[in-house]
Amino acid sequence: MVLSSDASRCAAGAFPSPGVSPLRLTRIGIDTYRESVVYMHRDCGVCRSEGFESLSRVVVSSQGRSIVATLNVLTGERFAADVAGLSEAAWRRLGASEGALATFAHPPQAESAGDLRARLYGHALNEEQYLRLLRDAVAGRLSDIELAAFVAAGVGDRVDLEETVALTRAMVRVGDRLQWPRALVVDKHCVGGLPGNRTTPIVVAIVAAAGLLIPKTSSRAITSPAGTADTMAVLAPVDLDLAAMRRVVEREGGCLVWGGAANLSPADDTLIRVERPLDVDSDTQLTASVLSKKLAAGATHVVLDLPVGPTAKIRSVQAAQALGARLLAVARATGLHATLRVTDGTQPVGNGIGPALEARDVLAVLRGEPDAPDDLRASALELAGVALEFDPAVRAGEGRECACRLLRDGSAWRKFEAICVAQGGLSEPPQAPQRIELPAPRSGIVSRFDNRRLARLAKLAGAPRAPAAGLRLHAHVGQPVAPGEPLLTLHAQTRGELDYARGYFARHTDMIVVEDAP
Amino acid sequence: MVLSSDASRCAAGAFPSPGVSPLRLTRIGIDTYRESVVYMHRDCGVCRSEGFESLSRVVVSSQGRSIVATLNVLTGERFAADVAGLSEAAWRRLGASEGALATFAHPPQAESAGDLRARLYGHALNEEQYLRLLRDAVAGRLSDIELAAFVAAGVGDRVDLEETVALTRAMVRVGDRLQWPRALVVDKHCVGGLPGNRTTPIVVAIVAAAGLLIPKTSSRAITSPAGTADTMAVLAPVDLDLAAMRRVVEREGGCLVWGGAANLSPADDTLIRVERPLDVDSDTQLTASVLSKKLAAGATHVVLDLPVGPTAKIRSVQAAQALGARLLAVARATGLHATLRVTDGTQPVGNGIGPALEARDVLAVLRGEPDAPDDLRASALELAGVALEFDPAVRAGEGRECACRLLRDGSAWRKFEAICVAQGGLSEPPQAPQRIELPAPRSGIVSRFDNRRLARLAKLAGAPRAPAAGLRLHAHVGQPVAPGEPLLTLHAQTRGELDYARGYFARHTDMIVVEDAP
Repeated sequence: MVLSSDASRCAAGAFPSPGVSPLRLTRIGIDTYRESVVYMHRDCGVCRSEGFESLSRVVVSSQGRSIVATLNVLTGERFAADVAGLSEAAWRRLGASEGALATFAHPPQAESAGDLRARLYGHALNEEQYLRLLRDAVAGRLSDIELAAFVAAGVGDRVDLEETVALTRAMVRVGDRLQWPRALVVDKHCVGGLPGNRTTPIVVAIVAAAGLLIPKTSSRAITSPAGTADTMAVLAPVDLDLAAMRRVVEREGGCLVWGGAANLSPADDTLIRVERPLDVDSDTQLTASVLSKKLAAGATHVVLDLPVGPTAKIRSVQAAQALGARLLAVARATGLHATLRVTDGTQPVGNGIGPALEARDVLAVLRGEPDAPDDLRASALELAGVALEFDPAVRAGEGRECACRLLRDGSAWRKFEAICVAQGGLSEPPQAPQRIELPAPRSGIVSRFDNRRLARLAKLAGAPRAPAAGLRLHAHVGQPVAPGEPLLTLHAQTRGELDYARGYFARHTDMIVVEDAP
Repeated sequence: MVLSSDASRCAAGAFPSPGVSPLRLTRIGIDTYRESVVYMHRDCGVCRSEGFESLSRVVVSSQGRSIVATLNVLTGERFAADVAGLSEAAWRRLGASEGALATFAHPPQAESAGDLRARLYGHALNEEQYLRLLRDAVAGRLSDIELAAFVAAGVGDRVDLEETVALTRAMVRVGDRLQWPRALVVDKHCVGGLPGNRTTPIVVAIVAAAGLLIPKTSSRAITSPAGTADTMAVLAPVDLDLAAMRRVVEREGGCLVWGGAANLSPADDTLIRVERPLDVDSDTQLTASVLSKKLAAGATHVVLDLPVGPTAKIRSVQAAQALGARLLAVARATGLHATLRVTDGTQPVGNGIGPALEARDVLAVLRGEPDAPDDLRASALELAGVALEFDPAVRAGEGRECACRLLRDGSAWRKFEAICVAQGGLSEPPQAPQRIELPAPRSGIVSRFDNRRLARLAKLAGAPRAPAAGLRLHAHVGQPVAPGEPLLTLHAQTRGELDYARGYFARHTDMIVVEDAP
């Protein structure tokens, strides 16, 4: 630890105090999600001599490593005054050992403190300022409260195009960036909010089967019952590091890995910490997050799926146009060729919602099983067709037909199997032990779905924490149902979760609306 | 607990789960500042059946009372799975008892969730929307992350005058409001950021001695080494409830109490939870906070002190004009007569910084002691003069002279004594056991102070937690000093704090700049 003559200008330095004894670290066993928290007793020498209070930011140093953590002060007699507890996130980030000695100091002001204030006060930031902010964010030098303020200050239409480009470039620079020895590297992204819309594994299989390069990283669920990485994780290992990912792509032309293990645009994973509880997703942040991931993965061409529906993430065609325009403009400014597809987001795609149940749909489409969901197949073929037309060898308008052929003749399925094997082996999705069919309340035609309530239902059943949990739809919009005929089957790992989801379904009869036939 | 048919529209309801056993509450002994946190084990029946995760918001109900808390999940073996721990803030807010049974449920969406999103997305809110948001904030139904987003969305010039008026009115309505049987009720406020600028006790004493009504509530320090309530607390009890405060004012015409014990504009105290770590203070929020406190206290006339200096809260005359204009306009719209004084904020006012050290300055001025600081006396007389001229019986331009007379003839001191006695008794300020003089590094003229570093120095010495801690200045701008002559004396409760503050002073030689005489 360097004793800095002007600590406020020195990110690495801190204010060590003379004569303060170190404390021994303990893994206190508290999960604070992603915020690093340190627990010290009010009566310990450190708190008393340094003037630390609850929510003080503290530099914790042990065995040559340092993190910045938020202090929660311990009171009473349950905890000793000669140890410092670390939350799970702090423990991991510091790489701490039980009983190791640690020292504590006031952090120098984060280098980016001025940049954060500037953003709060509505001043546009440039790429270097964003880079400083995001580096501090990724290094854990900003608290959840500061991150929330950062995110809130960028919601709405406050940030213009130029600044979104600066943010996007900074998000790429804060992490690693892959390079591939090919002029055409494909990627795809769905803006999300539509349960079950698991086209990615099918698109990757088709595009790679066609001989194009598609090094796909995906995320785990943030607020949804499954992310693509959650679904893929029931079929094959997805926690590959950059070197392993590169080997899979070099061998098979594509991969389907979790982006979190690679260090591609890591700021996104940090900001999610507060975006999840806030449930906000600004056009600016969304654009920067999506495109920075693609740029960091080394993509040159990307197809973007924007599902629109009253209960999807994008609620109107106007909103899709505004977001789409920003995505296209920022892509152009950062040298990425992007094509948009505005798709139907009025109801779930496929039948399953939840990691394993969605994986079954994916396998059914890839294997050409007779009960494979038509809507999922159609959506995947559409997107794969666009991707294939990025290849100058494929004529405009022929991409979809080409995709159909690769699916029909088994090439896509063989490619998918090969990718899974390269990632560590293909497994069959697990079955949930607890299942119950929920019947239609009356006869009629299924007229409307509430995607948000369905997503919540699947989460209450345990998805994505329990990979086999979720639900399977037996009906889609326009389909007739008789009273007592099942609308969906709930899948859960435990009886309690099943009961809880069932209660939620009973209380929200607008989740699936059945009306008289016209 | 009501089982609601549509819980998202019902703030009181929640989703109780069938068949989940209650847990016993324990005061876990963790101080999370003002956020209510509940600690439950990953393996407990509640987390498993309700699908709770870290940062989930949870309704905790026990003995007929409920709060909403943020969940931190316990892991490992240090904690049992059949108890739920509460943070200090949660324990107080719930009024919990050790070992009492509690039940847990998913909270209904806060009624104001839509209002928060609207504010984030830049839509103007009306008074009713702000009221809903602030009620949820005060009731603890918003997390720190949500509060931070709310505050961040209002920083800068994003909120116009009309909306600031709506916010101000909502802040008044969310708490109690005092009424007084007088046409003229005076208040004063300093926008702050200037260490030692403790004019309030002197102004109140003079104004009350003149026979005007001045029911003054003050705050404790948020980021400074002392708030007026901290300084007054070393002289007299300040934790009076509304009824006690009313009795003091009825008897003496004035009071000097801590606003936090009264329920006047309580939203402010909630927002401070995040404003403190964010270190932001938007013109909008500042205007609404200041004026709502005055309106809630029943004031009709208010004098506002805006100190301007490069290291004060307000850094330029332009900034003071912008803030002043907003304060005057909102005051006018809410029926409050306001007068501004833009004062010198280039250096601390008075000699002491820290509760007891500032209290000594206040007493010296009121008692007319020969070493009383001239600048503090002058500033207090100026502000009191403005306040006295609110009285139609005092002619314009004669207020200051009238204030001087009341100070000189001892009326103000007798009134101050009487107010302290009415509040519970006057005490002499304590003396810190650890003291050290810090000498000038060279001879010359004191040319510049850094108010922020001085404030930090006083805090590192222990202020305001240790009321006697802080510092005493021996020189002001323009004064000659010889090498070795003391610039200031540090006061601390412990040797460690003294050493720590001394180290900080040594490293920041720009805190007090001494230059060659011109």
